[in-house]
Amino acid sequence: EATFDPKEHQHLRYNPLRDSWVLVSAHRMKRPWAGQVEKPAEEHVPRYDPCNPLCPGNTRANGEVNPHYDSTFVFENDFPALQPDAPDPGPHQHPLFQSKAARGVCKVMCFHPWSDVTLPLMKKEEVVKVIDKWAELVEELGATYPWVQIFENKGAMMGCSNPHPHCQVWASNFLPNEPALSDRCQRAYYQKHGEPLLLEYAKQEAEKKERVVVESSDWLAVVPYWATWPYQTLLLPRRHVLRISDLTKDEREDLADIMKRLLTKYDNLFEVSFPYSMGWHGAPTGPYLEGDNSHWQLHAHYYPPLLRSALVKKFMVGYEMLALEQRDLTPEQIKSEPTENSA
Amino acid sequence: EATFDPKEHQHLRYNPLRDSWVLVSAHRMKRPWAGQVEKPAEEHVPRYDPCNPLCPGNTRANGEVNPHYDSTFVFENDFPALQPDAPDPGPHQHPLFQSKAARGVCKVMCFHPWSDVTLPLMKKEEVVKVIDKWAELVEELGATYPWVQIFENKGAMMGCSNPHPHCQVWASNFLPNEPALSDRCQRAYYQKHGEPLLLEYAKQEAEKKERVVVESSDWLAVVPYWATWPYQTLLLPRRHVLRISDLTKDEREDLADIMKRLLTKYDNLFEVSFPYSMGWHGAPTGPYLEGDNSHWQLHAHYYPPLLRSALVKKFMVGYEMLALEQRDLTPEQIKSEPTENSA
Ligand SMILES: O=P(O)(O)O[C@H]1O[C@H](CO)[C@@H](O)[C@H](O)[C@H]1O
Ligand SMILES: O=P(O)(O)O[C@H]1O[C@H](CO)[C@@H](O)[C@H](O)[C@H]1O
Repeated sequence: EATFDPKEHQHLRYNPLRDSWVLVSAHRMKRPWAGQVEKPAEEHVPRYDPCNPLCPGNTRANGEVNPHYDSTFVFENDFPALQPDAPDPGPHQHPLFQSKAARGVCKVMCFHPWSDVTLPLMKKEEVVKVIDKWAELVEELGATYPWVQIFENKGAMMGCSNPHPHCQVWASNFLPNEPALSDRCQRAYYQKHGEPLLLEYAKQEAEKKERVVVESSDWLAVVPYWATWPYQTLLLPRRHVLRISDLTKDEREDLADIMKRLLTKYDNLFEVSFPYSMGWHGAPTGPYLEGDNSHWQLHAHYYPPLLRSALVKKFMVGYEMLALEQRDLTPEQIKSEPTENSA
Repeated sequence: EATFDPKEHQHLRYNPLRDSWVLVSAHRMKRPWAGQVEKPAEEHVPRYDPCNPLCPGNTRANGEVNPHYDSTFVFENDFPALQPDAPDPGPHQHPLFQSKAARGVCKVMCFHPWSDVTLPLMKKEEVVKVIDKWAELVEELGATYPWVQIFENKGAMMGCSNPHPHCQVWASNFLPNEPALSDRCQRAYYQKHGEPLLLEYAKQEAEKKERVVVESSDWLAVVPYWATWPYQTLLLPRRHVLRISDLTKDEREDLADIMKRLLTKYDNLFEVSFPYSMGWHGAPTGPYLEGDNSHWQLHAHYYPPLLRSALVKKFMVGYEMLALEQRDLTPEQIKSEPTENSA
């Protein structure tokens, strides 16, 4: 039998945050691609567009007028998936037809008054303001809601319908599937090993250095050992931090810096404004504020869809939807590429 | 408090096959769409293309020549994600860096010698041949492999790189995430209620008729109560059947018929060759053939990406990837639409 080489031989890797497996088949990168090619990203975005509902001073769908903001700007989503007052569907009659009440709020947060910038192009101080606002929203909404999901869909390829730099913040009266699973996995690890899963993971990766993309005194960004998307990264503080609102002033400045570096690497990789969905996971809030959340460690997930170039993405389709996620190159191969290709 | 109306008020629904929830926010359909618009599907596919590696008589990437087949044709994937002989990565050194051996085979199966047909356009007898071949492959590969995943990616939007009608069959030495979860859920339901989850579900849906899209004496296709994709369907036999290879001759003929009807409805909905990923889930095989699998019921999942038209799909992005899946109209609304719009 041949000696195992992860770049040559398919294998499964365990995702300890989701208690699931991913199939790594590096040799698949060699196959020819005659499939769908994406549209190139919008070339020219004007700094101000009188028709864009996210620009300062413009009128939105519901008739409200945006202020002439000069930093971040937060408002209620005009077409929210979650509203604070939805009635309760009532008790279910059959275990296969269960529903329950969903209540919450959906906010949109513009990062900057200009439409033609992105986080990596913004000044460090401007990114710090975004982080401060995230922390504020987690405190404010988290006072009552058990989960506050901060996420950014960047690029048309990721379902983003407006080029103005912005993210969304959806707070809910329930713990959604993904954080519920992550909570379970982190708790089980803590109970078994006596330390937070992601704190131990960051220590290991900082030593190994095989999958580290960027690092600083307070933060670490790695392609996780169990990454499913080709260029997926995990952004972690080195200190034990439960929620984004617990970050110190220094840690926020350092975070602004490492985010800019990480996103610049992404943009340089295929010389395109890199599309992705990203979001923060931290200890749950609302009623959970009372409980013990020592098993939690704050982190951000970046899920970019591209695979081979700015125009060819990875399709998570048939086998991935019905069986398990499959990737076409190893996380270690990824790590070396952005480093080499970027400035 | 207002009276609950699922078409007006967001709520969560429980997916008993995945032990997870989906957020239904029907009022979101009203929002304007200025996001990405897909390319229209390829208009003209020639019946025979001398450069297409799937056509009869043509030479594939590895130099092999296809026979002049006149029905189905099965061959080994030239760029397989799973190979029978990959070496074992060996024991892991740390619980956060776990890998394990993945072995298997990947086959491609052409449905028909012509590139310009799809399942709904094929003759019923030709579709029966496809079903017979699926059953044969499950028997053959399932003799040793615990899981045989039959799946079809249809359309460039679903990562399919070749317009010739075909599916794939990947067999593995492990139970992948999705079937492992489904096995757990079906087993727990059976233990608690004393009957197979999906058999009871089919009975309930056949009575309610609210979400039935097509039905026949042996089969039922419904938009499941917990559907995540807008036009998702679940295809179920009425009888208790563990695996596709257990279907009788009559059930196979009836299946060919209902598949043609379901897929015709899809094609008529937006007047386009409807893209989707689909696949079969049945009781596990290989070593599991010895065990008791009474909790299992054979079924096929159809996951089509379209939302509003042939050109606007649903993006499962930020909130969906990081929190939970969200849909923009109720499964009951969907059900009535394909019925009305199709011939
Ligand atoms: O094998 P194909 O058709 O080239 O590839 C397609 O299906 C595979 C299995 O779902 C996916 O991993 C690929 O991303 C997709 O492009
Ligand atoms: O709210 P938006 O940006 O219009 O919509 C986008 O993000 C949402 C949350 O991830 C998704 O449900 C939508 O499918 C996507 O298009």
